[in-house]
Parts: sequence; structure tokens; C-alpha cells
Amino acid sequence: MRRSSDNVVRFVSSNRHKYDEALPILKGLGVRVGYERALLQEVQSDELAVIAREKARNAHRRLGMPVIVEDDGLFIEALGGFPGAYSSYVMRTIGIAGILKLLDGSSSSSSDRRARFSAAIAYDDGSESRTFEASVRGTISEAPRGEKSWGYDPVFVPDGQDKTFAEMGPDQKIGASHRTGALRAFAEWYVTSA
Amino acid sequence: MRRSSDNVVRFVSSNRHKYDEALPILKGLGVRVGYERALLQEVQSDELAVIAREKARNAHRRLGMPVIVEDDGLFIEALGGFPGAYSSYVMRTIGIAGILKLLDGSSSSSSDRRARFSAAIAYDDGSESRTFEASVRGTISEAPRGEKSWGYDPVFVPDGQDKTFAEMGPDQKIGASHRTGALRAFAEWYVTSA
Repeated sequence: MRRSSDNVVRFVSSNRHKYDEALPILKGLGVRVGYERALLQEVQSDELAVIAREKARNAHRRLGMPVIVEDDGLFIEALGGFPGAYSSYVMRTIGIAGILKLLDGSSSSSSDRRARFSAAIAYDDGSESRTFEASVRGTISEAPRGEKSWGYDPVFVPDGQDKTFAEMGPDQKIGASHRTGALRAFAEWYVTSA
Repeated sequence: MRRSSDNVVRFVSSNRHKYDEALPILKGLGVRVGYERALLQEVQSDELAVIAREKARNAHRRLGMPVIVEDDGLFIEALGGFPGAYSSYVMRTIGIAGILKLLDGSSSSSSDRRARFSAAIAYDDGSESRTFEASVRGTISEAPRGEKSWGYDPVFVPDGQDKTFAEMGPDQKIGASHRTGALRAFAEWYVTSA
């Protein structure tokens, strides 16, 4: 593994919100991390890990420092995994209203509204490339609920909970989140392979 | 412009069907064309021309010959352009049934079912990179119609017609198609800039 001179790994994203959510988690696990704003070209793939890996490679090429990038998506079983790796495009076009319309007539007591939220973290330092994934299973609610709206959070109810991600306080959300799972998997590897 | 030694431009695609449809059109316009099968990595973009341009660049890098690639998509106005540049992914997941469900309640007498089918052809020979686009406007039918099923053809009715693309004979379809328009635009440029 090639460390940077200041031993900081750069979290590269066009979205500062992602970094703000990741920072306390990584810091708490002993990872020194800084933010680097960049809009990175993404490849088309149904697999988050492939998109994240290529994005990290591009980010490393551009910055010349150890980097991590994150990608996540909502995979709905009854829709063949849609919107999956294209979740942000789908949010920008048909949005949550479109997702709920597609599931219209699917009862939450059956398995028709089953989904998983998955996240992939990719690390690249030029000599080493690694990806880490985590998922949270749950169901899509009948209607959006919660004020703290972020992506599909208002319609995702993780298993074992009554609340959507958007109804949870920040600590509860972070504790239950797929993104936290992927960040933890990365941090465990990173701090032990110095 | 850099011609190949045999003056043939390679149509690169993983889908032989696309080449078979393009061959008579290009031949009829004086372009010598051959087929090269390759699965090319695509970038994520809402713009077909960007996806096609990057794909042609990759194809040229890999083959070292003048190439063209094609990309097309269905852009539905009421859905913010969805499924657009991601039409093939959307077809693989929610399919035509999903598209019709999203438009459920949108009457074809209003503008709610307006759409365009667009195609982009990108040319790359290492020294020159060009893209050519064409669109056909129309409406999304209430139900799929036609046997010759190919992508979204069974639900797209071009303006001035009663039939969906899938109900048309091959000659009528080729005459009305967005893909023909883009191929023609490319061919006009190509044969006059030798």
C-alpha cells in the first residue's frame, strides 16, 4: 500500500454531503481522511463495485494520491434490481413518485416490496485497488415518510424497524446504514494493512 | 481524416442486429462498412452523443482502425426524459410494462405521452472525432402492438403514423427511423470529406 506523505486518504466526490456523513465514521475508526471535490466520469455497469472501482482509478490518476470513492443504489427485487446502479439518474427523472407508481398494487405483506440498499467503497492508490460492499435489507413503504429527505431514504424501511431512513435521527440512521457498513469494511482493512 | 488501407469503416457493436439494420443504409449512401463485434465499456451520461463519442474513442483505441458506434434511446417528456440514455438497462429491468405503468392515467390526447426516439452515431479514426444525431417525435401507445418486437418499438408511434414501429414492415420502419437519420447524417459527411 502506498500512503500519501501526510497519511491522509482523499474522499473524492462531487457531493460534500457524502463526505460529511463519512467523516465521523472513518475518523472514529482511525482513518485520516480529507475531502476532494471532483466530478468523476462513471462507467455504465449493473454492479456498484465495478462503477466504484473505475471511478477510484480515474480519481487516483487525476489526483496522484490515495483515494476512496463511494457509490450506492437501491435494488428492488420485484423490479429486477431497478433502479440499482442508476439510482441517481432515476431519482432525477421519475423520482420517488415513479418508484411508488411502479410498485402500485404490490402489497407490503407479500414479498413484492422487498429491496436492499447497497453501497460500495473503492480504494485506489495506484498500486492497490480494493472494493468493499455492504447491504441493508428492507421494504419500500407505501408512501414517503420523514422530513430529513435524502435520495430514497423516505421510502426505505430497514428490516426490524418501523421507521424509514428519513424518519430516523442521524445516529440511528448512521448505525443502520449500508454506507456505514461499507465504510467500516474499508476502515478495518485500511488500518490493519498499514 | 485517416482512412484504413481497405477504405472500410468498422461498425463496432456487441449487437449484430444493429449492424444488419445499418448495412444497407450505409452501402446505399456509398460508405464501405464492415462489422466488428466488441462489448465496449460505456460512460454514464444523460447525453447520447457523449456516450457514443467516448465509446468510439475506446473502440478506435482497441482496434486501431476508423470506427463508428451507435447509441439510441427513448426520451419520454412527462418522465423528464426517462429512460433516455439508459433505455437498454430500463428494458432489462422494468421493461415495457414498467414504462406503461409509469404513464398509466396519462391520456394520449394530451401531451403526457409525447416522446422522442433519438440516435447518435460517433465516428473516430484517432485524428478526428465526430458525432451525428437524429430524432423522431411521436407518442407512447396505450399497449404494445406489433410482432416484430425490438426494444421499445411496440409502444412508439411516430408522428403522422397510426402504426407502432413494431407494426411496420422493414422498409417503412427504416424510412421513418431515428437511426436511419443519424446514419444518413454521418454518411453525408463521410463521403464528402474523403
